[in-house]
Order: sequence, then structure tokens, then C-alpha cells
Amino acid sequence: MKRVYLDHAAATPVKKPVLDAMLPYFEKDFGNPSAVYDMGSKVKQVMEEQREKVATLIGAKAEQIVFTSSGAEANNLAIKGVVFARQKKGNHIIISAIEHHSVLNSARFFERMDFEVTFLPVDKYGLIDPERLRQAIRPKTILVSIMHANNEIGTIEPIAELSEICREKEVIFHTDAVATVGNIPVDVNDLGVDMLSLSGASLGAPKGIGALYFRPKLRLMPLIQGGIQENGRRGGTENVPAIVGLGKASELAVEEINHKVDHVRKLRDLLVQGIDERIDQIRYTGHPHKRLPGHASFCISAIEGEALLFMLNQEGIYVNTGSACASKALKTSPVLVAIGVEPDLAQGSIVFTLDNSNTVEEIEYVLEKLPLVVEKLRSLSPIWREKTAA
Amino acid sequence: MKRVYLDHAAATPVKKPVLDAMLPYFEKDFGNPSAVYDMGSKVKQVMEEQREKVATLIGAKAEQIVFTSSGAEANNLAIKGVVFARQKKGNHIIISAIEHHSVLNSARFFERMDFEVTFLPVDKYGLIDPERLRQAIRPKTILVSIMHANNEIGTIEPIAELSEICREKEVIFHTDAVATVGNIPVDVNDLGVDMLSLSGASLGAPKGIGALYFRPKLRLMPLIQGGIQENGRRGGTENVPAIVGLGKASELAVEEINHKVDHVRKLRDLLVQGIDERIDQIRYTGHPHKRLPGHASFCISAIEGEALLFMLNQEGIYVNTGSACASKALKTSPVLVAIGVEPDLAQGSIVFTLDNSNTVEEIEYVLEKLPLVVEKLRSLSPIWREKTAA
Repeated sequence: MKRVYLDHAAATPVKKPVLDAMLPYFEKDFGNPSAVYDMGSKVKQVMEEQREKVATLIGAKAEQIVFTSSGAEANNLAIKGVVFARQKKGNHIIISAIEHHSVLNSARFFERMDFEVTFLPVDKYGLIDPERLRQAIRPKTILVSIMHANNEIGTIEPIAELSEICREKEVIFHTDAVATVGNIPVDVNDLGVDMLSLSGASLGAPKGIGALYFRPKLRLMPLIQGGIQENGRRGGTENVPAIVGLGKASELAVEEINHKVDHVRKLRDLLVQGIDERIDQIRYTGHPHKRLPGHASFCISAIEGEALLFMLNQEGIYVNTGSACASKALKTSPVLVAIGVEPDLAQGSIVFTLDNSNTVEEIEYVLEKLPLVVEKLRSLSPIWREKTAA
Repeated sequence: MKRVYLDHAAATPVKKPVLDAMLPYFEKDFGNPSAVYDMGSKVKQVMEEQREKVATLIGAKAEQIVFTSSGAEANNLAIKGVVFARQKKGNHIIISAIEHHSVLNSARFFERMDFEVTFLPVDKYGLIDPERLRQAIRPKTILVSIMHANNEIGTIEPIAELSEICREKEVIFHTDAVATVGNIPVDVNDLGVDMLSLSGASLGAPKGIGALYFRPKLRLMPLIQGGIQENGRRGGTENVPAIVGLGKASELAVEEINHKVDHVRKLRDLLVQGIDERIDQIRYTGHPHKRLPGHASFCISAIEGEALLFMLNQEGIYVNTGSACASKALKTSPVLVAIGVEPDLAQGSIVFTLDNSNTVEEIEYVLEKLPLVVEKLRSLSPIWREKTAA
């Protein structure tokens, strides 16, 4: 059967050259990088070369990168690491209302410890207003964390503006860039951030690897404490094969990014225009142009997102509804609530995230099947009957 | 050149069948296990089968296993997870004086937060006295963490006795079993523990995967917060290929463990006897028989451990000195200090950890080369000249 995979924000296949680069480090060069003999130091050197490649991808220096096991771990390390290190300076944290659960719950963790968390609202496109951030900062604010782009609605936040406000006010600024690194060019200097989280899974690297960028001299309490690995910032034997995978994927991303942006934007525009022409009573969620180039998201009236997913699945089409991690947990997405989508519409969320490997034919296939599936589901929907009868 | 690898506690090569089992999950079955479509649910099911296999290896049930990215993460999750969940019940933690840095530093983390940590001393063999544990427990004690076996001296602690005392006193008991799972039969019921950490790297699974066993109903604050993965106990997309590797390695360990114990014990005894006959002024560290079957450790007088490692490295022999993680960080091992090794001897620590794949010929090769290397190093040592002149 045909397989049209348009859920790259949830998972990407490991690229062939990435897997090839990883393979020697499972059976052959398996030494512990902390070991002092040649089998260790050789692997250690390879690992440091990967750090350089990851740093290059985001305009950073190798020594500013700490490897983690996921974007979620990087987010936890960023928030808990800074707050535990700076808790004597204040007890106020600011995050946006549409953060990933790893940021949201890390911030909430401190609410039990005499901290206050401010959730910055977003506008109907999902954008943070920099002036609202300025007003929210207090003398006791020690950390602001606002995502680079939201995976559910694709909106890209004005990070450079937001970070500048934090720099003026001497507040640490973190951005969760899991949705952007590998999908658009990202440079930590342009963004002006103190910390940035990324994930290998968005890059065609394997699952189980992420990284945190941190600016020089930033104090960070380790999340996973242990030995001297990662300069004391993360304990546990380093995951060498996955680190090599992330390095290779970063190298490829540098080469491919411009082409990828063009390619997925073209396909995305085709998809959005096609859906707009073929299906009525829908809302295109997120910002019309300040958004990820390979990202399209809709709310479709009188449809249940999960049913839509299942029926598209039967046609070989793979998409998402709401954020990947929360897909089984929640009925109404907090992100859609935050941008003011009415409950009826919010149930029918559909999210497409495209990759280099997608083709015009695949988009045409979706444009053929999706309207039929929507029509079928609506024909079974009492809400739809009520609406169309009125 | 010949390669005789006797540092399996630091790292093991991934076994061929383990890597073969993992490979389909990089490129082909790459779906996110949280996704509701077939590509997700299929992978989710595979993941749950692995959880069953890991549980079987230690006599647990699948729902009592949470996957982590390493043994170090499992230790951090155990200690921080319980202490954050139970901090209203008390502010006292007990660990042994010879714990791994991931346990030691996780406990120390709470010293900054109005907690007190008791470090239980060990005897000259590295054994904890259960009566001392009993005396150390206070009404405010909420957690005891004592390792199953120590990687540096091989001593196996009387965990069943220790955990029974904790059960009587209603104190949570955790054991770091990274050194034992895969090396000796381990059963959580026989041990009577509330939590147990293990690592894939000791099992021929890849780096980057570990697990924590926890008894039913134990409250645990997640270390990595995020979505609903791992039943809310660990956020972040699950590392499916590594989980499959851990599952396969657990399956193999169940089959191989008895043979492995016999095989490595025979080789180890040969090694210990041979060294004892060939080199004088040494101390066999750890317990003479309550120890890991594939583990031998010595302190050699008037020798610097790192120099010994380098020279053995040149002969193709790979061994350790002190614990793997701390090898670059510390001059004198805290474990050797805890068992009362004199400073002169403690410098000359050498640790052998054997595996199924090692052979009699390899041990004979070591017994041929090691005395020559020791002799050479001693001939250059002013301490040795002083000693032998006296």
C-alpha cells in the first residue's frame, strides 16, 4: 500500500548516511569515552568532533553544547538547571501558554517549591507580544522560556526581540527549538538566546539524542548527576552511536537546509491551497506566514481528529492531531485553546509536517483522499447535520 | 595486534543479535510510539514486549519497569523521584560510602535543601554491616540507597538483609544494580528492594539505555518531565531502537547467565591465582568470595595505576583503574579510601572485569605481560627502590 508520511514532527526515519556513520560504534569502537586507554580516547575524540558539528549547525562553539537523551531532557536541564543554580536570586519564571509539556511541567515543578510561574498568553496566531513579556518581568524573575516554533500550529515566535528584552533586564532566556533546528536556519547569535534545546529526532538522527546549547559561563545544575562526563553537566556514559548520528545529521542539515526550506514550502503551499479549495468550514491555525515552511495545520468543523487520523491511516496517510506527545492524553489541545479556537473546531485538529522526502504526488494523493474522508465523517456527524440543516 | 579486553564494567560491545534486533527501528519502523496510527501502535507494542523481557530478567512485572537513558539516569530518578515525592515525610537519606557518583551526587543535591545525608561506612572488604544501617535509620529517614555490587572492588552487599531492615522501618530501599544485572542472577523479590537500577551497557545492549524497577504504587516524581510516555514517569519520545536492544540483551542474559557465571569465575580465579603467584606486595581488594564472579581487583605497591594502564594498553590489554566514570577526575579513589587501603597502595589500583567472550589464552597472555610491566614500572619507581633497599 501507498505510504504518505506527513508527521515528521513526531518522528523521522534515520537517514541512511546517519545510520552508516553510527554503525561502527556499536560493535567495533565500543570503548567508554571516559576510559584512558586508546579505545576510549579514540571514541572521545570522535565524540568531540560531533559536538563541533552540532555547534556549527546553530552557530555555536563546541564547548557550549551538552548532549542529552532527547529534546525533553534538554528542556528539563535548561529550566531545572538554571532555576536550581539561581534560586537564591528570585522565584519567578515566565513561559508561554503554548510550551511543550517538558517545559510546562518543568516550570510547574517549581510551583510546589514557593515559585510563581507566569504563562504569557498568545494572540490568535499563537504569537507572543514582546511588550507583554516586558511587563511580565519582575525583579524576582530568573528565567524566561519561550519556544522557537510550535509544532501544533507552526507559528515562529519573535525570539530575537524577546531575548533582547530579557538581556536588558538581566533575565536568562531559553528557547525550545526542537521544532525549528533542521527545519529552518537557526543561529544562536541571531536569536540572542542564553540556552537553546534541540532534538535529533527532528533531524533524521535517531531517537534518544538531543542537545542543549548554553552561553559561556552560564551556571547550570546538572539534571542527571554522575561523573565528569559532559564537563560535569550530565552524568552517565555518553551515548556514542547516537551522538555520532546527531553529528552526521547536523552536517547533512547544514548542507540541505536551504533546499529543504524551499521544497517543503512549495509542497505545503500546494497542500494548504488545495485543502482551502476543497473543504469548507475549516480554520487554518497558526500564523499565515510567520510559520515553519513545512508545516500546515487546520481545524475542521464537525470532525473528530482521532477518527480523521484513523481513516487517513487506512488510506496510507500519516498525519497528526494536536501535539505528538499529548495525543493520547488530552481531548482538547491547550494550544488550540490558547489561540481561541472554538471547542467544536478544536476537536477536528489536523497537523501536517513535511520533509525533504515528500513529493508533489504525495500531496496530490492527500488532496484526493482528504476531502472524501472529511465528507464521509461529516455525513455521520450529528453536529454537521445540525449545522447544514440550519 | 592482539586485543584482550578486560574492562567490561566500563563498556561492552553490542552483541550481534542485539544490533540485528535494533536495526529495523532506525529506518523502517521509525514511528513515534505515542502516535495513534498503525506505524505508532505497532512500535508501541514492540516496546511493551521489551519491557516484559527486561522485567523477566529481574523477576519483575512489565508495568514495574521504566526505561531511562542510562544507569546513571535510573539512579537519579530513583533518588530524586522518591525524595521529591516524599519530602514532607522526612529529610534524611542514607547511602553507603562507596556508591556510584550518580547516587552520591543525587543524595548530595538534597544537602543544599535542608536534608541530611548519612554515609554508611564499609569494612575492609567493602561490606555494609546491617546493624549499622539499623542504627542509622531515624524517624525522618525517607530513603536508603545501597549498591548491589561495587564495580571497583567487586564486593556484593547483603541487599536482602539490608532491605528487610528498611521494610520493618518503613523506609524506601533502592539498590544500584548496574554492576550485577547481567553478571549474576538478580531477582527483585529475593532482594526485597523497592527500586533497582540497571544499565544496558553492562548487558551487551547499546549505550544510552537503562531502566528502573519500582514496586507497585511507589510514588515517583519524574526526573525528565514531559508528556505521558512511560506512564507519566519519564517524558520524551521513547528511544525505541535502544529499548529493543535492551529487550534482546535481557532475553540473551536469561539464557546465558548460568554459563557466564561459571565461565568468568573460572577465568577470574585463574587470573587471581596467577597474579598472586607472580607479583609480590599487592593487595587483593574487595571481598575474597562475596564478589562478582568475573571481577578481580588489586592494588599494586609502588605503581601508578594510570601508567600501568598505558603500558598494558601497549600490549593490547584493556583494564581499568578505579571506577570508569571517575577515572579522569580523581587521584585517590574514595572506594579504596573507604576500605582503608593505604595511599601508596591506592595509587596502584587495577580492575579486571570479565565477560563470556574472554578465554583462558587471554588470561595467560595477561599473566605473561602484567608481571613484566609491573617490574618495569617498579624499576623506575623511587618508592620501590626505597622499599626494596630497606
